Amino acid sequence: MLLGDSFDAMSRPPATQYSIHLEVTLDNGPGVLGRLATAIGDAGGNIYAVDSFVAKGELLDRAMVVNCQSVENQAEVVAAVENTQGVVLRGWWDRTFKMHEGGKIEVLSLHPVGDHEDLSMAYTPGVARICTAIAADETLADEYTIRKNTVAIVTDGSAVLGLGNIGPKGAMPVMEGKALLFKEFGGVDAFPICLDVSNPEEIIETVIRLAPTFGGINLEDIAAPGAFQVEEALKEALDIPVFHDDQHGTAVVTLAALKNALSVTGKQLEELSIVISGVGAAGVAIGNILLGAGATNIVGVDAHGAVYDGRDELNKWTQTFAERTNTERKQGQLADVIHGADVFIGVSAPNVLTQDDIRAMNPDPIVFAMANPDPEIQPELTKGLVRVLGTGRSDYPNQINNVLAFPGMFRGALDARATSITENMKLAAAKAIAESVSDEDLCETFIMPSVFDKSVSVRVAEAVADAARNDGVCRS
Amino acid sequence: MLLGDSFDAMSRPPATQYSIHLEVTLDNGPGVLGRLATAIGDAGGNIYAVDSFVAKGELLDRAMVVNCQSVENQAEVVAAVENTQGVVLRGWWDRTFKMHEGGKIEVLSLHPVGDHEDLSMAYTPGVARICTAIAADETLADEYTIRKNTVAIVTDGSAVLGLGNIGPKGAMPVMEGKALLFKEFGGVDAFPICLDVSNPEEIIETVIRLAPTFGGINLEDIAAPGAFQVEEALKEALDIPVFHDDQHGTAVVTLAALKNALSVTGKQLEELSIVISGVGAAGVAIGNILLGAGATNIVGVDAHGAVYDGRDELNKWTQTFAERTNTERKQGQLADVIHGADVFIGVSAPNVLTQDDIRAMNPDPIVFAMANPDPEIQPELTKGLVRVLGTGRSDYPNQINNVLAFPGMFRGALDARATSITENMKLAAAKAIAESVSDEDLCETFIMPSVFDKSVSVRVAEAVADAARNDGVCRS
Repeated sequence: MLLGDSFDAMSRPPATQYSIHLEVTLDNGPGVLGRLATAIGDAGGNIYAVDSFVAKGELLDRAMVVNCQSVENQAEVVAAVENTQGVVLRGWWDRTFKMHEGGKIEVLSLHPVGDHEDLSMAYTPGVARICTAIAADETLADEYTIRKNTVAIVTDGSAVLGLGNIGPKGAMPVMEGKALLFKEFGGVDAFPICLDVSNPEEIIETVIRLAPTFGGINLEDIAAPGAFQVEEALKEALDIPVFHDDQHGTAVVTLAALKNALSVTGKQLEELSIVISGVGAAGVAIGNILLGAGATNIVGVDAHGAVYDGRDELNKWTQTFAERTNTERKQGQLADVIHGADVFIGVSAPNVLTQDDIRAMNPDPIVFAMANPDPEIQPELTKGLVRVLGTGRSDYPNQINNVLAFPGMFRGALDARATSITENMKLAAAKAIAESVSDEDLCETFIMPSVFDKSVSVRVAEAVADAARNDGVCRS
Repeated sequence: MLLGDSFDAMSRPPATQYSIHLEVTLDNGPGVLGRLATAIGDAGGNIYAVDSFVAKGELLDRAMVVNCQSVENQAEVVAAVENTQGVVLRGWWDRTFKMHEGGKIEVLSLHPVGDHEDLSMAYTPGVARICTAIAADETLADEYTIRKNTVAIVTDGSAVLGLGNIGPKGAMPVMEGKALLFKEFGGVDAFPICLDVSNPEEIIETVIRLAPTFGGINLEDIAAPGAFQVEEALKEALDIPVFHDDQHGTAVVTLAALKNALSVTGKQLEELSIVISGVGAAGVAIGNILLGAGATNIVGVDAHGAVYDGRDELNKWTQTFAERTNTERKQGQLADVIHGADVFIGVSAPNVLTQDDIRAMNPDPIVFAMANPDPEIQPELTKGLVRVLGTGRSDYPNQINNVLAFPGMFRGALDARATSITENMKLAAAKAIAESVSDEDLCETFIMPSVFDKSVSVRVAEAVADAARNDGVCRS
């Protein structure tokens, strides 16, 4: 951990997540902006934007956006601005906190209610006609209510990003962000449901009670093994799609990324030695989808070391994982089993992978360091060591991000009126994502389509809907 | 009931809730539109709109909106159109059902996510900073999540409008309509939570689990006495406003309407004889707010007759109601206790009030027949009998509708960061609504402001927020 920590403090590059907005007044003379820019740079800030100015006689009002390295660095940059001669700092704010003020989503009406005519159709007395129709035939709720297009994003806040158990309120900003992405990339209306519960049984019970409101359930950031239990029980209990994004969303995008990384390196899935760091929700699901796609040699590593059949500290789901992987029953820590691996897939914790670990891998190593927000190895440290590097982050190339999967996955499932998400639907989604990168674009630093390429979710949705129909899991 | 039923079938006027949209092609000659209009009128339809036409040589394409009396009447009107010479019906649909297709609300992003910079602030890695801050100080969730402005509209579907127990899916269209009104009139983001539960304890348990997501709880259409139990338990358990709209929203608008009806008739609240038909959630709350406002003579009537202390069939809440009302211990049915009453307040069932009942009331009778969608007496039957008539419906004068209360109530509570809804907040809301009708406008047919007067909810919000601060129930 020392390596990562010291790296963190010393040389983390300025990033948008720590950007600040500054309102400054400059003396209207030559050299002042230059002095200010130099001071900001010396303090470690990166000027992202300088807005147009308003001249007020001998003064200039300006707005600036400066990316910083950390909260401490924000304070250093602000101090540097305040200490620059000819510059007055009128105000500043943290842009990330500002963006989250009041939350990130709103509930809007699809119909204006401007007069009594509108009101008597949308609300009483007309609405009673719709209620009565649904009470007589519940399937009409899929046509005449938001169920048709609405998904619950359910969490208990027990495994949020890489932050651990921060509780349901702490989880809200992530779930809201997810809702925003659902709408932006899939046209799906999604709503956060952050639950104050104390065990998986309570999550299951609560979601079953909530199900009349929703057309699908996206489970999110629930700690394993509870997450496995919740997903299994809800798939069994409900006739709407249930999808644990940390498992299957991650598995889908990982398979997509690996398909394209193999095209770049010329390796074959069947012959690969794959190490998965983290055998929680994501790790188990990645193992399963890779086995389903043809992989034969997978070793999982958790906090206790390599996972093998017969080891202690296994639950029902990791035991199944152990039985299906590590046929050589390798033991030891990550540094032991990484030797001779072709692929490292990290869904675990920051900085668990070292440069020496990568040096011990086979030629042309593929490293997917997907822990959020801080990857298993800082990307800057892999330079010259890996052939293909992917992370979960938006500020590095090859972002292996679930946003490429879940909006299209639910768009397709809702469009097809699917009652569940099948293995074939997941494999179809992975294929659609991988094929979204053209042969001309495909290279070491471009194995994944941009998360802003909205054609991806359209392709995923079509592939998923087709697979649902082929699997016969659609309502008539 | 016979009176109501026969009235219903014979002479219910055409209404928007049964309106249809027609696409017709007419021979482009004189008299054809007249023939069509006559045929529609003869069939019982009321032409609401004829849209501009598109001439195609000897033919004219037109769109029409026709209000009908019932679903059966829609078919009669359609048949009449089809049988009109020179007219071809190209298609038609029920406008109320059309409006509800796919539901009535959507979830929208408050922030565009157009590039990696946006994404790294709204989602990973930046969002982790907000999550971490909230995990360290949960009160920040009120600032940096949708909690700040978001209310759950919670029901089990056990007492929806006047339709009874139609279940959570059947209730969805009403809750969506409510969400639409929350946004339109209060700027409040509200989301339906329709629960598949089997008792009040499960509602309580579920809402407590959901509370981290929401800044307020609006209970809706839950049958009494369970509704009382749910509200009491949630007020006790949660530190956010809990408001059972069927109780307190109805009570607030009823008090507002009565204040203005008394101004019109010159009667005094303290001296009134008031009969409340229906001693469920709404009836009990109306009784309480009227007593709190100074009323002294109230008699409640339920399905078993007049409610008095010592009668059978009382629960914990109606027993308390009985102890506080009917000091003369009147017994018998509605027709017995209505004799000599000044005010009839109906929150019960269609057509329970007869013309003879009104004739037995004191001079200048005030009748609030608020059962939804069909009032205690059809308004047409009260002509010449009542001094002031109010209903819950949007298609008659004096609409006593909760929409005048709940959006402003929650707007004020959220703005003041109130932790609960106090009695003074409700009384302040009623006063603000009543005072929204100017002295010049106030008359028998205008005791309530228009539900489309958006200044009402602004006034209510300010009055409610002030009352919350005076009562000291605001977060710092």
